[in-house]
Amino acid sequence: MTFEYDAHTAVTPDGDGFVAELDAGWTVGAAINGGYQLGVVGNAIAATVPGKPDPLVMSAYYLSATTPGPARVRPTVRRMGGSIATVAADLVQGEETRVTVLGTFGTLEVGDDVEVATTAEEFELPPVEECVPVPAAMRELVPMTSRFDMRFHPDQVGWAAGSPSGRGVLSAWFRFSDGRDADPMSLLGIVDMLPPVTFDLGRPGWAPTLELTVHVRARPAPGWLKVRHATRNIAGGMFEEDGEIWDSTGRLVAQSRQLARLPRR
Amino acid sequence: MTFEYDAHTAVTPDGDGFVAELDAGWTVGAAINGGYQLGVVGNAIAATVPGKPDPLVMSAYYLSATTPGPARVRPTVRRMGGSIATVAADLVQGEETRVTVLGTFGTLEVGDDVEVATTAEEFELPPVEECVPVPAAMRELVPMTSRFDMRFHPDQVGWAAGSPSGRGVLSAWFRFSDGRDADPMSLLGIVDMLPPVTFDLGRPGWAPTLELTVHVRARPAPGWLKVRHATRNIAGGMFEEDGEIWDSTGRLVAQSRQLARLPRR
Repeated sequence: MTFEYDAHTAVTPDGDGFVAELDAGWTVGAAINGGYQLGVVGNAIAATVPGKPDPLVMSAYYLSATTPGPARVRPTVRRMGGSIATVAADLVQGEETRVTVLGTFGTLEVGDDVEVATTAEEFELPPVEECVPVPAAMRELVPMTSRFDMRFHPDQVGWAAGSPSGRGVLSAWFRFSDGRDADPMSLLGIVDMLPPVTFDLGRPGWAPTLELTVHVRARPAPGWLKVRHATRNIAGGMFEEDGEIWDSTGRLVAQSRQLARLPRR
Repeated sequence: MTFEYDAHTAVTPDGDGFVAELDAGWTVGAAINGGYQLGVVGNAIAATVPGKPDPLVMSAYYLSATTPGPARVRPTVRRMGGSIATVAADLVQGEETRVTVLGTFGTLEVGDDVEVATTAEEFELPPVEECVPVPAAMRELVPMTSRFDMRFHPDQVGWAAGSPSGRGVLSAWFRFSDGRDADPMSLLGIVDMLPPVTFDLGRPGWAPTLELTVHVRARPAPGWLKVRHATRNIAGGMFEEDGEIWDSTGRLVAQSRQLARLPRR
């Protein structure tokens, strides 16, 4: 069986990089989600550097809004090392570059890591059944939310009822709707699939990402993931959004940060 | 008067990008500091996008060790917008690319920002005169430390005497030795000028940076800066290092994160 996420992020080499078909199921309004795009770009990079299947770090700069339909990914190897490779890649539609990326790929350990020392504290999230599914109104505006099962912390969904907490934190349980377990590549996308943290600040609306960098730090265990977005610093018309993904064994498997424009009031 | 940092990061256009002379005063062992390199690359980018003088965000992927002497920066504009521009740039020496960068430039506000909301808490650092200058042994091994005045938190310099705290935090006062005040461009470098936070974990030694992303969030006020490095997550032979720079008015002016290899034991 082919899971939906794999079918939708598949790439095919054609002599000028790779072609992909961006599925309309991953839209937010009219535009394609930035995280989903990284899954497509990541697959093209992995196919370019055999033996280095996992993204260790990727930085994406979003240049123009991506729409459903055909796209092309053009990777260029910048450095091929023994254990890691650094690749530049553009995702283009027609003549327009949508996103330009730098990424370093390698192999994340399988089984016990040689050395793990995390002082980061796993954030608290009530049991799945006490958390809140995506509100119906949001499912209509954001088609991609039917691709996954997302359950928000009950104290952090006030925005759905017009009373955001104002703390600048959003966290949720996450898994794909069709039962696909997360792997390192899909974490690139999952860090960008919750609503912008500005929802919790009473600033719903489009928060265009300028830059998103993701560190994938371990291969996630099967099961539900816990995802959190938080912002600490709004200034100059922009905000930073820090993301964390913890797996079902309580391990911090990905860290992200993005710089985005503050939605207009 | 020309300050040292400005002379050492100057770039000159020559028809194939920009030429620079990397000064041996910025070495750590035999290699040139990664932050100083971003100052050079940043000047070349700013010269390429007139009217957009300030780095808002820059991501650097380090491909090979940079040495003192001539270098070339080749910027390519990827998107020129009304208020911001995104540029790719390589710093090369001979045939070798040392670092490849993506950056978005614009203009940081002057004077009062329209909207600032920071929940980040300014970290505590005792008065400058109670903090600890760079140990003499380190000044010899790391020539760049004479370019600036750095005063460490007294509780976080145990590593200099062989008894690191193990907390994974390093913080210090910082200013350039010749009195140059920091500006947005120099913050790109200053986030990478403290020792690696692994010193505080009893892991001195070289911690090569794979990737460094810096968000410059405001124009710093004149005077001493407070800089902090912290790591929360060691795994897969790597660690992340989060940096913050606060200015003399208590404003968070830059945030950075890097992924680096753990020094060998």
